[in-house]
Amino acid sequence: MLDSLHRVMNTVTRLDNAMAVLSWDQETYMPEGAVQSRAEQLATLSGLRHQHLTSEESQRIGEGARKLAHDLPERQRLVVENFLEEQERSLKLPAEHVERLARATTLGQDAWKRAKDAKNFALFSDALSEITELKKSEAELLGYEGHPYNAMLDIYEPGLTVDHLNPVFDALGSGIKSLLARIEPRSATVSDEVLFRTYDGQQQLKLATEIIQKLGFSMSTGRVDLSAHPFCTQFDRTDVRLTTRIREHDLRSCLFGLIHESGHGMYEQGVDDSLSGTLSAQGASMGIHESQSLFWENIVARSEEFWHWAFPRVKDAFPSQMSDQTPESFFKAINCIKPSLNRVESDEVTYNLHIILRFGLERDLMDGSLRVNDIPAAWNAKMNELLGVVPASDDEGCLQDVHWSFGGIGYFPSYTLGKLYSAMLWNAMNRELPNAADSISNGEFAPILEWLRKNIHQYGKTEKPDQIIQRVCHSPLTEVDFLEYVTKKAARVYGI
Amino acid sequence: MLDSLHRVMNTVTRLDNAMAVLSWDQETYMPEGAVQSRAEQLATLSGLRHQHLTSEESQRIGEGARKLAHDLPERQRLVVENFLEEQERSLKLPAEHVERLARATTLGQDAWKRAKDAKNFALFSDALSEITELKKSEAELLGYEGHPYNAMLDIYEPGLTVDHLNPVFDALGSGIKSLLARIEPRSATVSDEVLFRTYDGQQQLKLATEIIQKLGFSMSTGRVDLSAHPFCTQFDRTDVRLTTRIREHDLRSCLFGLIHESGHGMYEQGVDDSLSGTLSAQGASMGIHESQSLFWENIVARSEEFWHWAFPRVKDAFPSQMSDQTPESFFKAINCIKPSLNRVESDEVTYNLHIILRFGLERDLMDGSLRVNDIPAAWNAKMNELLGVVPASDDEGCLQDVHWSFGGIGYFPSYTLGKLYSAMLWNAMNRELPNAADSISNGEFAPILEWLRKNIHQYGKTEKPDQIIQRVCHSPLTEVDFLEYVTKKAARVYGI
Repeated sequence: MLDSLHRVMNTVTRLDNAMAVLSWDQETYMPEGAVQSRAEQLATLSGLRHQHLTSEESQRIGEGARKLAHDLPERQRLVVENFLEEQERSLKLPAEHVERLARATTLGQDAWKRAKDAKNFALFSDALSEITELKKSEAELLGYEGHPYNAMLDIYEPGLTVDHLNPVFDALGSGIKSLLARIEPRSATVSDEVLFRTYDGQQQLKLATEIIQKLGFSMSTGRVDLSAHPFCTQFDRTDVRLTTRIREHDLRSCLFGLIHESGHGMYEQGVDDSLSGTLSAQGASMGIHESQSLFWENIVARSEEFWHWAFPRVKDAFPSQMSDQTPESFFKAINCIKPSLNRVESDEVTYNLHIILRFGLERDLMDGSLRVNDIPAAWNAKMNELLGVVPASDDEGCLQDVHWSFGGIGYFPSYTLGKLYSAMLWNAMNRELPNAADSISNGEFAPILEWLRKNIHQYGKTEKPDQIIQRVCHSPLTEVDFLEYVTKKAARVYGI
Repeated sequence: MLDSLHRVMNTVTRLDNAMAVLSWDQETYMPEGAVQSRAEQLATLSGLRHQHLTSEESQRIGEGARKLAHDLPERQRLVVENFLEEQERSLKLPAEHVERLARATTLGQDAWKRAKDAKNFALFSDALSEITELKKSEAELLGYEGHPYNAMLDIYEPGLTVDHLNPVFDALGSGIKSLLARIEPRSATVSDEVLFRTYDGQQQLKLATEIIQKLGFSMSTGRVDLSAHPFCTQFDRTDVRLTTRIREHDLRSCLFGLIHESGHGMYEQGVDDSLSGTLSAQGASMGIHESQSLFWENIVARSEEFWHWAFPRVKDAFPSQMSDQTPESFFKAINCIKPSLNRVESDEVTYNLHIILRFGLERDLMDGSLRVNDIPAAWNAKMNELLGVVPASDDEGCLQDVHWSFGGIGYFPSYTLGKLYSAMLWNAMNRELPNAADSISNGEFAPILEWLRKNIHQYGKTEKPDQIIQRVCHSPLTEVDFLEYVTKKAARVYGI
């Protein structure tokens, strides 16, 4: 019975791997004329995956395995449970719903692009209304306790609820706002102008690729390519692909983009080999995944210690551009904190206010207390309240993100969860490795990676996010560690 | 019923597409550590393809379609027939046989590499014996009339038999041998030294990529990458991938390699859109495919007319290396004819003797008149007889090709079929387009490509090779056109 289950899981997993290869290729190398045929290929594999996961035989095999599960060693039991959850979720969503959503989001992405170009939310609102209604139906199909948004959160962060998030995000928002108020009078003391000089693209890529290998990303089981938007995907723990993009007038884009993705990548490369060919051979959730990418991008690579080690490398690569810089001035430049309109270009502190805004709107959309047509007004009011800035037009405001157009309601909180988790993990790590910061300033990243491997990576998707955080940090999700971390950093950068 | 059939064909085709993407990636970008997981992915997709093609439901659908086929428009009928043939072939080969062959060829490729490194055929003979026995069983499973080798030929060149090939290859061999005897006294009059000067790799790739686009290869539905061995693969007519390799001291490798592959690629790009999603959306056979690649590589790009147009481009790219060359001297250099030990490095004339040798050995292996252990002696004797050269060791002789180690018995004749077909097509084209050679010398390739599209490409795999050749050339396969073509060329190059 377990052999049969492993055969089913292996087939589903290998189909997932193949779809990931096809999607990676689509974003990196596929010729423009192949869009339609690639969609056919992906639809075929996706259909076969659904068939295979939910066939009567697979259900019978799943039921048999469920009965045996409690006698299995823990990790195997968790693998079986994870499979059963995914099977159950697939069974709950009828093919008709999946197809309607696929059509609505295809149209939605097109409408969103047109609306954004026209700076006019009205061109997107019909499409978004349909997507929202379908996501509400999906919540009913999947089932939930309490708030309907919980069904959406559960897709990306299993077990997370509105009741958990509301108080954490409220406290986080207040904490950040009072920190910003203290920074504001000192804001002119730090300049990030150095980041926007001219930097040769190939040299940027070479530097970034060298640095992620020093951090621990393995190029014998991974690689780096370019794409319009940076991402990480895995076809197996032995084949993890990162992408980044190059901007000749923004030193952050390639370097921090690639370090971020390498954090995702090292997580995938660190999943225990025994999980290979199962649905648990991947990260535990979007939030835990972000905790790994943000750990490396922010906690490590935006720390003063890191630039003690890394600055000479940047200076070697770009001697003239760095001639007026010191490790300290560079550290400050990459840690400028200031409210802005744009989520992806914002700093690690104000970023969270963008997420809190989106979380509130999504939650209210799902319970009907916000109507789609009222999004622009709600957005602008909330921007003003949280960040003190108001977009001049919708493209700089509520049309800036692609997520809603592909139906990704419930996804945004992952980004801030990643920030909160990563600060919690850093504190937990320091309790066990008191010299972690010294390691970083010496360019010794192995102990850091090893600790993450041991505590997080190896488990793959066998535990829920809250179980992982409780096991490693001995605490449920909290904003406290993150606020402490950014307050310390702001003190260093702004002298407050 | 036909809708159901199209759904089955679409699923099988999209799985083929996906496998092709995975294989392409394996040869171009995949990190070394991913070999095992990629094998798992391919095995899974291949198993699903077999299941889907041969399931009871697909058989029922196939039987239904067979009954309707004679009332269909011709192209649709041919699509159905092609599907039924492939289904039948898959049903004839039990999974056990396919698995045994997969294992034997995996071991075989490993043994072949070791034997080649050790220059000792004996290290490969056990593995090759097993592969040969399995291919003999396969012939019995597939069925054949006459010679058992016919079952092998049928895989790559449907309908072709030993009885067809024996007289054509005999006449071809004699014709080439007498041509070589006439060239021999004049061999010192032509030098190919210019090809082996130093040429910057990136500049080579740029030049070759520009040239294939001039020929008509579309980069909006295709692309070019590097790999150890050049190849062409397609994931759909809208996504055709070529690879080439760069050798800094051999100008032929990248340029002619890429032109060759672009000939395969333009064939795939030219298949009629109505065949998309069927098993007929691909080239008709290996031989017809080679006729297209060799048409562009040899008939076009090794012609004097072509270098009238192309030489200035090569000179622009490599002015110092070309300073002592003229279009005529360069044309002669790339058309040197001289017997050598190595198939892939040989010229377009003597190449065929290498194929005739392999064809004879394969044929005799399949009917038992040659034993595997006697291959080296038979090889060396035949090399001496046909080419007048004898390898010093097995790695330069009967171990030079990978084909037998992957079970590709029956494949080699395709290469020479391609040469014979391409010369026949050139004559047929000239009867309809008497200015074809002038077009080439003006760099106007559109009429040539258009003629190939109209007469060959659009049909995809709806006709058998002999039907195509008969329809277009009004003749069955013959060596006459090719011998005439190379005799004319030898006259220009060697003044004989």
